[in-house]
Amino acid sequence: MKQYLVLDEWKIIEKGFKPDLQERSESIFSLGNGRMGQRANFEEKYSGSSLQGNYVAGIYYPDKTKVGWWKNGYPEYFAKVLNSTNWNGINVLIDDEELDLYKCKVSQFSRILNMKEGFLEREFVAELKNGKKIKVNSKRFISIVDTEIAAIRYSVTPINFDGDISFKPYVDADVENQDANYEEKFWAENEKRVNNDKAFLNVRTKKLDFHLCTGIAYKIFQDDKRVNVDAKIVEKDKYISFNFSVNSKKNIETVVYKYVANLSSENHEKNILTSETEKVLDKAINKSFSNLFEEQKDAWAEKWKVCDIQIKGDIAAQQGIRFNIFQLNQTYTGEDERLNIGPKGFTGEKYGGSTYWDTEAFCLPFYLSTAESHVAKNLLLYRYKQLGKAIENAQKLGFDNGAALFPMVTMNGEECHNEWEITFEEIHRNGAIAYAIYNYVNYTGDKEYLVKYGLEVLIAIARFWSQRITYSQEKNMYVMLGVTGPNEYENNVNNNWYTNIIACWSMKYALESALFVSNNFFEDYQRIVKNNNFDDELEISKWKEICNNMYFPYDEKKGIFLQQEGYLDKEQILVKDLDKSNLPINQNWSWDRILRSCFIKQADVLQGLYSFEQNYNLETIKRNFDFYEQRTVHESSLSPCVHSIIASKIGDNKKAYELYLRTSRLDLDDYNDEVAEGCHITSMAGTWLAIVQGFGGMRVKNGELNFNPTIPKQWDSYSFNINFRGYLLNIEVLKQQIVLTNNSIKSIEINVFGTKYKIQQGKSIFINH
Amino acid sequence: MKQYLVLDEWKIIEKGFKPDLQERSESIFSLGNGRMGQRANFEEKYSGSSLQGNYVAGIYYPDKTKVGWWKNGYPEYFAKVLNSTNWNGINVLIDDEELDLYKCKVSQFSRILNMKEGFLEREFVAELKNGKKIKVNSKRFISIVDTEIAAIRYSVTPINFDGDISFKPYVDADVENQDANYEEKFWAENEKRVNNDKAFLNVRTKKLDFHLCTGIAYKIFQDDKRVNVDAKIVEKDKYISFNFSVNSKKNIETVVYKYVANLSSENHEKNILTSETEKVLDKAINKSFSNLFEEQKDAWAEKWKVCDIQIKGDIAAQQGIRFNIFQLNQTYTGEDERLNIGPKGFTGEKYGGSTYWDTEAFCLPFYLSTAESHVAKNLLLYRYKQLGKAIENAQKLGFDNGAALFPMVTMNGEECHNEWEITFEEIHRNGAIAYAIYNYVNYTGDKEYLVKYGLEVLIAIARFWSQRITYSQEKNMYVMLGVTGPNEYENNVNNNWYTNIIACWSMKYALESALFVSNNFFEDYQRIVKNNNFDDELEISKWKEICNNMYFPYDEKKGIFLQQEGYLDKEQILVKDLDKSNLPINQNWSWDRILRSCFIKQADVLQGLYSFEQNYNLETIKRNFDFYEQRTVHESSLSPCVHSIIASKIGDNKKAYELYLRTSRLDLDDYNDEVAEGCHITSMAGTWLAIVQGFGGMRVKNGELNFNPTIPKQWDSYSFNINFRGYLLNIEVLKQQIVLTNNSIKSIEINVFGTKYKIQQGKSIFINH
Repeated sequence: MKQYLVLDEWKIIEKGFKPDLQERSESIFSLGNGRMGQRANFEEKYSGSSLQGNYVAGIYYPDKTKVGWWKNGYPEYFAKVLNSTNWNGINVLIDDEELDLYKCKVSQFSRILNMKEGFLEREFVAELKNGKKIKVNSKRFISIVDTEIAAIRYSVTPINFDGDISFKPYVDADVENQDANYEEKFWAENEKRVNNDKAFLNVRTKKLDFHLCTGIAYKIFQDDKRVNVDAKIVEKDKYISFNFSVNSKKNIETVVYKYVANLSSENHEKNILTSETEKVLDKAINKSFSNLFEEQKDAWAEKWKVCDIQIKGDIAAQQGIRFNIFQLNQTYTGEDERLNIGPKGFTGEKYGGSTYWDTEAFCLPFYLSTAESHVAKNLLLYRYKQLGKAIENAQKLGFDNGAALFPMVTMNGEECHNEWEITFEEIHRNGAIAYAIYNYVNYTGDKEYLVKYGLEVLIAIARFWSQRITYSQEKNMYVMLGVTGPNEYENNVNNNWYTNIIACWSMKYALESALFVSNNFFEDYQRIVKNNNFDDELEISKWKEICNNMYFPYDEKKGIFLQQEGYLDKEQILVKDLDKSNLPINQNWSWDRILRSCFIKQADVLQGLYSFEQNYNLETIKRNFDFYEQRTVHESSLSPCVHSIIASKIGDNKKAYELYLRTSRLDLDDYNDEVAEGCHITSMAGTWLAIVQGFGGMRVKNGELNFNPTIPKQWDSYSFNINFRGYLLNIEVLKQQIVLTNNSIKSIEINVFGTKYKIQQGKSIFINH
Repeated sequence: MKQYLVLDEWKIIEKGFKPDLQERSESIFSLGNGRMGQRANFEEKYSGSSLQGNYVAGIYYPDKTKVGWWKNGYPEYFAKVLNSTNWNGINVLIDDEELDLYKCKVSQFSRILNMKEGFLEREFVAELKNGKKIKVNSKRFISIVDTEIAAIRYSVTPINFDGDISFKPYVDADVENQDANYEEKFWAENEKRVNNDKAFLNVRTKKLDFHLCTGIAYKIFQDDKRVNVDAKIVEKDKYISFNFSVNSKKNIETVVYKYVANLSSENHEKNILTSETEKVLDKAINKSFSNLFEEQKDAWAEKWKVCDIQIKGDIAAQQGIRFNIFQLNQTYTGEDERLNIGPKGFTGEKYGGSTYWDTEAFCLPFYLSTAESHVAKNLLLYRYKQLGKAIENAQKLGFDNGAALFPMVTMNGEECHNEWEITFEEIHRNGAIAYAIYNYVNYTGDKEYLVKYGLEVLIAIARFWSQRITYSQEKNMYVMLGVTGPNEYENNVNNNWYTNIIACWSMKYALESALFVSNNFFEDYQRIVKNNNFDDELEISKWKEICNNMYFPYDEKKGIFLQQEGYLDKEQILVKDLDKSNLPINQNWSWDRILRSCFIKQADVLQGLYSFEQNYNLETIKRNFDFYEQRTVHESSLSPCVHSIIASKIGDNKKAYELYLRTSRLDLDDYNDEVAEGCHITSMAGTWLAIVQGFGGMRVKNGELNFNPTIPKQWDSYSFNINFRGYLLNIEVLKQQIVLTNNSIKSIEINVFGTKYKIQQGKSIFINH
C-alpha cells in the first residue's frame, strides 16, 4: 500500500513527477468511453519504465502458445487484450534534443484526472540538457458523445529562450503487448493514407482479422492564431508522423491540437473503413477541440446526476467512490450488447478476455440501480446468446443432455483461459449466472425474462450441476469433488461450501422457475420443454434428490461452515499475526505454500452468506465473519466489498469502514502492489455495493425496496440515487437522520428499518435513527 | 493396443509398409548409443506423417514461453529435448522423380531392428510413378564403440530398367521441434566446410550456446568396386548436400556408404570442434563400414552376455524383455556422470529434461545388477552434485535451513518443468532420491557412500519433509497437505499415503544414517555437522516427533490404506466395468473428469507397499492390491511393473503374467496409444524388475541375495544374470527346478525359498520347486 495522490473530491491529482510510480499512474489516470480507452502514457517520448496501452473494445488476440496444453478439454486459445494503435503520441524536440521526462529536469509537475468533466490534464516545466526550459500543458479526452473521437491539446511555452520547437504528432501501430511471447507483434498493415494534415493508418490483427483504422489530424496555434506549418511526412511500417517546427518566443505558448478518429471493423465494413474514418475525423475537426470538450463536460454532468455518490466529511472516501464510479462508466456503457466488462477495462492488458463472473456477481447490481434497464438486460442477454457455446463447452468436458458450463473467461462465449484449476474447476461461475437472472428478475420484476430467455439458461445450468455432483457411498450423501471456489488460493478441493450452496440453489431456482413458467405461460413452457428435450418430471426429481441429500461441510465445535473439507487441518494462523513482509502473499510466497496455507484470497463462505443471507441468522453470519475475516488477505479485488457489506450487516462498523476504504481506494492506494498492471474495474462495482447495500442496507424483497442505513463515524453524511422499476430515489444518510426523496412522477412505498413509508412524487421523508 | 510386429526372439520386425503406423515405428526402431540417438526416420525423402528426431545427450533448449507462469516459484524455463542435425538423409531420384514411399507403390517392405547386433535394416521394392522399379536396402547403426560415429549402407538396385540413379546424401540442421511454439527454430549456423567428399556443418543452439558439429562423407560402390562421382555441392542455410548420379543397370546394386561423425561442445572445445569432427570422421572412413559393423556386433555381444534375460516357450515375452534391455542400453551407459536417463531416451522429444524420479525408483536397480558398480554410483553422484541447486530450489519455495527439494525434471539440477501440481507438489520424488541411497548401500554394502556423500543429501531431504509437514490441531497429528502422489490423476490432495510413508521413512533413514556415521566415522560426522549447520539433537528429535505422530489415511472397514483423504468419496467404478471406448482416459476424458474419478494412473499405495513390503503382512498387501489394481488404468508406463511384482509376491500368477506382458510389450503393442511420441525408456527398467524381483523374487537382505522364484505357466524357463558385490550369478528357473550358477571366482551363500545355500565358484546348484 502506498498513498501518493492528493485528496480531492472530484479529481485524482499527482503532484511532483514520480518516475518510479509511472506505470501505476498510467493505470490510475486512464481514459475510456466504453468503446476505446488508453493508459495515461505521455504524449511525448518517455524512456523510463512504462506500459504502453491503447485498447479497443471487442478486439482481442487468440494466443495459441503451447505450454501444458496437453490436458484434454483445454481451450483452443488464451485471449489476449490487444495493445493497439498508439494515437496520442506527439514527440517534441528543442534543438534536436528530444523532450523526455526521464532524461531532463522536471519541476512543477502535476497530473490531474478530472472525473467531473472527463479529461486528463498534465503540466510541468522541463529543463533540457541543453539548458532550455519549457513549460508544457497537455489536456486530452476520449469523447463519450462521439465514441470514435478523441482530442488532445498539447502546448509548449519557452521559458528562457526564443527559437524553434519541433513537433512530431504521429500514429503508430508497430506496438507490442507486454505479455507477448517472443516479442511477437499482433498487427499487420493494411494501408496508409495521408491527406494534407490528416493521416490514416489502417491495420489488421494477424489472427482473426480485426481491422482498425486510426486517423489523426493536427492544427497549430500561437496566441489563438492558426499557424501554418510545412510538415515533413515520415512513413514507416505501421507508422506515420508529421514532422514540423514552429518558431516561438519566450513565454509564447504554441498549441498543437491533435484530433483522433479510431474506427474498427466491429462497427464498420472493412472495405470502407478508411473513408469512414476520414468522415469521423472531419467531424471532429469541424467541431473543434473546444466544442468537443464542452460536449464532454455536459455529457459527464448528465451521467453524474444519476450515478454520483456524495460523502461528506471524508474526502478520501469521497474521492474513492467517485474514482470507482468514473472508471466503471469509462469501461462499459451498456450500449453494445456484444460487449462486456473486462476486469481491467481499458487500463491494462492483464487477464485477457472481457467477461468473468465479476459481471454477474458484482457489476450487474450497479447497472441495475444506476443505468437504464436495457443495460442490465443486455448483460444477461450476452450470456443467453452464448448458451450454445456453453453447452458445447460442457460437452467437451464430458457432460451431456444440454448441460451448460459457461466459460470462466471469454470474448465470444468460448472458454479462453488456460489454467485447468480455473477453467475446469472454478465452476461456481455457473451459479453466478443463474443468480444474476434471479437478481435481475427480483430487482426489475421482469418475470417475462424468465419466459423468453432465463428458464432455458437455468435448465442448462441445473443439468450441469446434477451431472457434476456425484454420490458418495462413504458419506451416503451427494458431494462435489475437485473444484476451485471463489477463493482461488485453494485448488481442486472437495465440497467447497460456497460452490455446493450455489449449485443447489441454482437447481432449486431452476425448478421454481420451471414451475412458474409452466403455471403461467404454458405454451412457452411447452416450447422450452420441446426445444431443450426437457424431461421435466425426471430431471426435476433428480435435482430435488440431490438438493435434499447434499453434503455441506460444517464444524460443530466452532459453529462455522467449512470453506471445504479439510480446511481445519491447515495451520491456523491469523492475518494479523503474519509479518507484513509476507504480504501480498501472492508476490512473496510460492504457489504451493499459498495453497496449503489457511489464507483466503477472497470471500468464499462469506460470498455465500452474502448471496443467501435470508437463510442464516445474524449469529451464524457473525460467527463465520469473525472466523474467516481474520484469515482473509483480500488479494482479490472482489473480496473487501463483500466483507464490508457483511460487516455492516452484523453491526461491525469499524470493520465495515476499514474494508470500504480498502475496496474504494484499492487502486488509488495500491493495497496489493499491482496497480501498475491496470485498475480493478469490475470490483469497483463492489465499492458501490459496499455503500448502497452495506452502509445503506438496501435490499429488494417481494418487489419492494428496503433500507437499513448506518453511517460510518468518520462521515457527516452520504447520499446516493437509485433507479428502481421506473422510480428515481435519492437516499441521504446523515448522522441523526435519513432523508429519502422521491424524484419520480408517482409515489412509492419503501421500507426503512422494517417500517413501511409512502413517499409522494417529488417529496422527501425524514426518518431519525 | 495394436499388435503389428512379427514375433521374434532377437529382432523387431515390421513386414509390409504401414504409413499409418510410421511414427510409431519410428519410435520403436530407434537407435542410440548413450551419447546420441535417432528415431527411425527414413533416409530418403518421406512426405507422409513423420516425427523427425535426432538427439544428442545433454543438449537442450530452455523454453521461456509465458503461459500461466505468473505463479511464484515457477521455474525459469521448461527444458525441451532438442531435435538436432539430421545426418541420415540420402535423397534418391530416378529421372527427376523423387523416391518417396508415401507416393509410390511399395512391396516386399521389411524393417528390422536387430537387437543382438545393434543395427537397423530396411528393405523394399518401390515402383515409381514413372513405372521404374527399384529395390532398396538400407542398414545403419550408431556405434557403441566409437560413440561419436554412425554409418549407413544404402543400396539401390534397378529391377526393370538401365539408367541413372541420383543420390543426395545431406546434412541438415534447419530442423524444428514438433513442440516448438510459432515454428521457432532452435539452431543457428556457425560454419559450413566442404573438403572433397566430406562436409561439415557446425551449428549452435540459439540459447545456451551448445555447439554441435556433424561431419558426413560418402563412398559409392558397384559390384564391390569403388565408383568415383562428380558431386555437385548444394549449400543452404544450415544445410549441405552432395548431389550426384550413378549409371546403373538392371539388377546391379549401387551402394552408398555414408559415414557420420557427430561431436558436441559438451565434449570438445568449441574452437576446434570442426577439426575434431574431421578427425573422427576420417577415423570412421578409415575403419570402413564393415569393420565398424563388426566392432558393433562384438560390442553388443559383450553387453548381452551380462544383461540378457532368456525366456523359453513364450516368444512374445522374450521379444519384450530383450527390447526393453536393448533400449535401456541404447539410452544410458553410465560412462558420463553428467548424463542421466530421459523418459523417452533418444526416441522422441516429449517430456523434455533428462532426469525424473524414474531414474532412482526404476532404473537404479537395473544398473546395480547388470552394470559395473560405477554406473549406479554415477547415478547417485549426479544428484549429490546437484544438492546445492536442490537447496536453492527449496528456498525459492519458502523452505530454509538447508532443506532440499530435488527437481521433478531437470537437465542440470534446476527445476525445469512447468505444471505447478507436478513441480511444486509431486514431492515424493525427494523420497525416491533418499530411497535410492538406501537401495545402493543395501545392494552394494558400500556404507562409505553414506559418509562421503549420502548423509548430506539425506539430512537436506529430511529437513525438507520436516518443514513441509504441518501440524493439524483438528487431528492432533501431523499431516501433509497439497501434494500430488505418484498417481498424477490426482492433484493437490491431502495426506497422500505414499508420500506420507516415504517422507517418514526418509526422516528415519536420515537419522539412522546420522547415527551410523556418528558412531563409525566421527570425524566425518563432525565435518558434516559443521558444513551443514546440522543441529542434530534438535533436528532429529523433530523428525522423531513427526514420525511418531504422523497421520496415515486408512479405511477400517475395507482394511486398506487410502491413497489420500477422501478417496472413498469418489464414485467407485472398476476399470473392467468401464466401456473400452473411454480408454486411455487421458486421451478421452477432460482433465477435471480424470481428477475426480477413482481411476489411478499408476501404482501409488502399491508403490509404497512395494518399497516397504517388510513392514506389511501378505494379507494386507493382498487386500490393497485387490482393491487398487481394479481401479488402476496403468496409463503411466511406470505402473504395471510394480503391480506385476506385487502380484508375484502375493501369488496371483495370472495377474503377474498379464501385467508383465503389459510392461514388457507396452511400446511394442502400444497399450496406451502413444508410442508415436517415443518409447517409455525409464519404465523398461521396471520390466526387468518384474522378472528379477517379481518372478525371480530377488531381494537383498542383510547383505545377502534372496530368491523366491515362480514361473508363469506360459513359460518353459527363464534365466537372468546378477552382478552382486563382485559376484556374477546366473539364475535359471525351469518348471520343476531352479538352477543357480556361480560364475565368479569365489563361493557365495544365497537364500532360496528361505533356505541358505552355498555355491562354489564355477558351480551350479539345483533346487526343486
